[in-house]
Amino acid sequence: MGELLDRINKPNDIKNIDAKDYKKLAWEIRRFLVKNVSRTGGHLSSNLGVVELTMALHLCCELPYDQIVWDVGHQSYTHKILTGRKDDFESLRQFGGMSGFPKRAESNCDVFDTGHSSTSISAALGLAKARDLQHGTQKVFAVIGDGALTGGMAYEALNNASKIKSNLVIVLNDNQMSISKNVGGMAGYLGNIRTNTNYTGLKEDVENLLKKMPHIGEALTGSIRGFKDVLKTILIPGMLFEDMGIKYIGPIEGHNIKKMVSAFKGALKVKEAVLVHVCTKKGKGYMPAEKDPSSFHGVAPFFVRDGSSRMIAVQKETYTDVFSRNITALAEACDSITAVSAAMPSGTGLMAMAGKFPDRFFDVGIAEEHAVTFAAGMAAGGLRPVVAIYSTFLQRAYDQILHDVCLCRLPVVFAVDRAGIAGSDGETHQGIFDIAFMMSMPGMTVTAPKNSWELGELLKFAVTHDGPVAIRYPRGEAYTGLEEYRQPVKYGKAEWITRGHGVVLLAAGSMVKTAMEVHAILKGYGFDISVVNMRFLKPFDKELIKEAAASHSLIVTMEEGVVSGGAGQAVMEWLNSSSTNSTKVCCAGLPDQFVEHGPVNVLKEKYGISAEKIAERILGIIAKKNKES
Amino acid sequence: MGELLDRINKPNDIKNIDAKDYKKLAWEIRRFLVKNVSRTGGHLSSNLGVVELTMALHLCCELPYDQIVWDVGHQSYTHKILTGRKDDFESLRQFGGMSGFPKRAESNCDVFDTGHSSTSISAALGLAKARDLQHGTQKVFAVIGDGALTGGMAYEALNNASKIKSNLVIVLNDNQMSISKNVGGMAGYLGNIRTNTNYTGLKEDVENLLKKMPHIGEALTGSIRGFKDVLKTILIPGMLFEDMGIKYIGPIEGHNIKKMVSAFKGALKVKEAVLVHVCTKKGKGYMPAEKDPSSFHGVAPFFVRDGSSRMIAVQKETYTDVFSRNITALAEACDSITAVSAAMPSGTGLMAMAGKFPDRFFDVGIAEEHAVTFAAGMAAGGLRPVVAIYSTFLQRAYDQILHDVCLCRLPVVFAVDRAGIAGSDGETHQGIFDIAFMMSMPGMTVTAPKNSWELGELLKFAVTHDGPVAIRYPRGEAYTGLEEYRQPVKYGKAEWITRGHGVVLLAAGSMVKTAMEVHAILKGYGFDISVVNMRFLKPFDKELIKEAAASHSLIVTMEEGVVSGGAGQAVMEWLNSSSTNSTKVCCAGLPDQFVEHGPVNVLKEKYGISAEKIAERILGIIAKKNKES
Repeated sequence: MGELLDRINKPNDIKNIDAKDYKKLAWEIRRFLVKNVSRTGGHLSSNLGVVELTMALHLCCELPYDQIVWDVGHQSYTHKILTGRKDDFESLRQFGGMSGFPKRAESNCDVFDTGHSSTSISAALGLAKARDLQHGTQKVFAVIGDGALTGGMAYEALNNASKIKSNLVIVLNDNQMSISKNVGGMAGYLGNIRTNTNYTGLKEDVENLLKKMPHIGEALTGSIRGFKDVLKTILIPGMLFEDMGIKYIGPIEGHNIKKMVSAFKGALKVKEAVLVHVCTKKGKGYMPAEKDPSSFHGVAPFFVRDGSSRMIAVQKETYTDVFSRNITALAEACDSITAVSAAMPSGTGLMAMAGKFPDRFFDVGIAEEHAVTFAAGMAAGGLRPVVAIYSTFLQRAYDQILHDVCLCRLPVVFAVDRAGIAGSDGETHQGIFDIAFMMSMPGMTVTAPKNSWELGELLKFAVTHDGPVAIRYPRGEAYTGLEEYRQPVKYGKAEWITRGHGVVLLAAGSMVKTAMEVHAILKGYGFDISVVNMRFLKPFDKELIKEAAASHSLIVTMEEGVVSGGAGQAVMEWLNSSSTNSTKVCCAGLPDQFVEHGPVNVLKEKYGISAEKIAERILGIIAKKNKES
Repeated sequence: MGELLDRINKPNDIKNIDAKDYKKLAWEIRRFLVKNVSRTGGHLSSNLGVVELTMALHLCCELPYDQIVWDVGHQSYTHKILTGRKDDFESLRQFGGMSGFPKRAESNCDVFDTGHSSTSISAALGLAKARDLQHGTQKVFAVIGDGALTGGMAYEALNNASKIKSNLVIVLNDNQMSISKNVGGMAGYLGNIRTNTNYTGLKEDVENLLKKMPHIGEALTGSIRGFKDVLKTILIPGMLFEDMGIKYIGPIEGHNIKKMVSAFKGALKVKEAVLVHVCTKKGKGYMPAEKDPSSFHGVAPFFVRDGSSRMIAVQKETYTDVFSRNITALAEACDSITAVSAAMPSGTGLMAMAGKFPDRFFDVGIAEEHAVTFAAGMAAGGLRPVVAIYSTFLQRAYDQILHDVCLCRLPVVFAVDRAGIAGSDGETHQGIFDIAFMMSMPGMTVTAPKNSWELGELLKFAVTHDGPVAIRYPRGEAYTGLEEYRQPVKYGKAEWITRGHGVVLLAAGSMVKTAMEVHAILKGYGFDISVVNMRFLKPFDKELIKEAAASHSLIVTMEEGVVSGGAGQAVMEWLNSSSTNSTKVCCAGLPDQFVEHGPVNVLKEKYGISAEKIAERILGIIAKKNKES
């Protein structure tokens, strides 16, 4: 007998599967997911959690006519399988292959590109409004996790969705987690619903209430708060949403397709925004992931037999590890140091400090805006907060960094992890804009370490500097070379690495290593060039750059970020406006494009910031000059 | 008999006033506010609304030890009066004078600088945490309006505040308005509390409930929804907040000092986050403002007798008016055009369109993030949304513009009002970063009109362009000069205004007028220079710039925004990397500083972007060149 999955080859094929076979199909999908992700790496726990949920949605939809917006989007693998992309899983997250996130460019069943959290209700509300104004009849679903619901945007969207007079179904995929365990008031609220209603549904609950009410009322007369809690959690599940004008249905078992289909069909009949609360289990069906969903959130290739990694066991220390070690040591030495994470204590390396100093560690949920202004408040109160957020997610807090931190010159330290090309998550996760957006913020200090030693030194500097400091460092293994260069960190000062002639490379952070490779390549061509470790991108070392300009004919700035608005342009503009010197400046960095998924080295080569590409470019400039003179 | 206000000269002086005189003092403060704001201009309605609220807070505080964070901050005038800044009101919002917002630099009673909405709970939570970790005993208050509560950050902060085990008092100043009337589910919810509880307070309500419960229960058995509504609105005010883990007290009459002091004192005893819901009336005590609080939100100098403006009656058309006229006409011609405002339908000029096409206008509340992604959803659904937001507030949506609009190249139009120096609101309201932050976004088109005609033309272009387009225009009177220059708008194309020799000015938007003034000044010195209207800052007109570089020895880029990351740096970098031509480029724009409050022309002069200053700079470069050659 063939597999059911063999019959799923294009959108809506699931509708030809017998209802009695749904369980088997779900099982096949899980096996398919585990097998494929174990080879390519990718997001596992979240995808295993929503197999039945996705099947139920597809059973209610006609795709691509109907529209499903997947919040964050890393849980869209089953959606991809059910929309004819099964065979592309071999190339999942590989360069040139299928993305791990929904992409309009990849399929007309992907209606909105996602990657960052908490955008789905806003986008779906927009789609619903577009439908109404154009007299369409599409069903519109937003699928949002309880983690993403801690993001303020989701609340802004709920607040606005309450006004819609037509149907919009918001599926709350409640697995009690973001990447790590969920936090905050909303998590507590959802927890109460789950615990107290025992999945019995709204109607029975309220009917039971009505029967029991006089009794409860009498028993609790003396205890107003107790009474309110009872009312809240036993009797009125979802009242918080109803208060905001959003109809609530739930909670529903998220691995029971029949119950979900019935709930969705009911929800689709309502002429307003409806939230269907579905309870799922992250990692469902694969024991290693069920036991430890955080570790299987995003995974490298692993052995299916026990979930152990296929990667070589001897892992080098990552920049995140280096940060983790240093922040913990600094917190030990200084009581004023606190740390803030936006739902990624593990990813940002804050678990060690959190374990040692639980009072000084704050996981605020997926809430980067609040994270930054909360830190600003702590700084205004005399503490030394360190906010650790990935570069791409820090984009969410642009205004808070500028308006709440820089404006008052508050001493908040930004540990900007995953800065630069981040790899296989692709466009939505590359950390390539942080330099550009921080360069234009008055009072901001932007730094980048050349190696693991320097990350520690910059962190030491940052927690004592009287104003905001960002330290950006890339994903993955920390560079431990160039350890003999240990010029003490001084505000705004760069470091000479090698002194040569003609060309000087002004390299920032990860690009110092690359600069040394460029240096080696050019040496092969007989050029002995200079290399400078910028350390401080803002303010950059004017004195040193002036000296470098005076003694070289070409300055090449190197940064792992977009050229537009980056440190290179700033250096060039300053040199042009302050000197009559004719030293040519060339800015190496990323072009004005989004960078897709793929291995970091492949992408660096493609976008012109590998050592080879930069060396080639310099040789080109030298050749041109020789020709002219 | 002297005035009570004469006895208020430093922090805490209010405590020496007899309780029986509070009413008189409130009246004197209102008279003082009306008198002063009528002369200087400023925020009126919001300040008149919180006179008693501020007095009550000060009666509960010892300043500057205790800490009050004012959300947005334009309602802090009474706080300024009560903290010894009465005499500074003559210079309110004047250049060099007192700011209209809280400023740490101005007083140690201002604990956190605000200006943008919805930050206060985050900051106050940070201050409370700093207090706890340092074993302090400060009282910490956040005062937030119901308008600001629609911002997602406030929700993120509430979600996080629910975990605090010590005291934090959040005062919800509920006046049913942001600048305009408030919108959305939360507004509806607060409205229900106000209407149904009749200000009787929590305890009585619940006691009444308990008495009436069997009766209500029986009567409504058949109507579950009706029963829930009754429970919700009559019986459990503030349950939504309690659901999130925030203790609720209220609603309290916001013009009754005794009741508020008692509520605050009660709230201060609780070892958790407490929300005190206070109902105030915007504009209270001055009839013209009470009748039309929106118009008296931020006002120019006016006559106290009737509230009419002191400004000359014949008002010139502003850029906002021009936008208003054009968007309405375009919406008339094309059904796909929709418009989105974040709580500023009037300020952004969308009232006319909203009146004509209510179905296609969306006021989403103070929720810029949602506004942008909601528009992205509409664009993905085939509509042509235009999002009108002030430059400074658009900062809030940095990630949404990049991640939800640009990544998918969705045709969302950004009408970026108040772009450039905005004047007397100061640092928090200058629109000087938008060019810089949009220049580095792949796929974004950034434009600026030279005059009112061109704003209309750019808008026509924008709503048909296949991708995101921003149009930035300044506050105030629209320039109607240069109307003979009407080269049709073409994607990425600039416009020659005058062709001369030696120097070419590449001016963007408002700076084209300035460039013509520079042209005139230099003519006086015998130089006949060239002027180009950039129109497109991104992508800029490479062909024209190449031509200009070939035929001139100095290019001066001119933009009303920060130089760092701006269009000038991009032009310079492109020319440097693409040509061997030695044309010097000079970037005129704002320096790397925050710009304080004051008249636009004064600030332009101070920060070097007036015609005189730019002409001077050019003459300096010419002089230097002559000396060298």
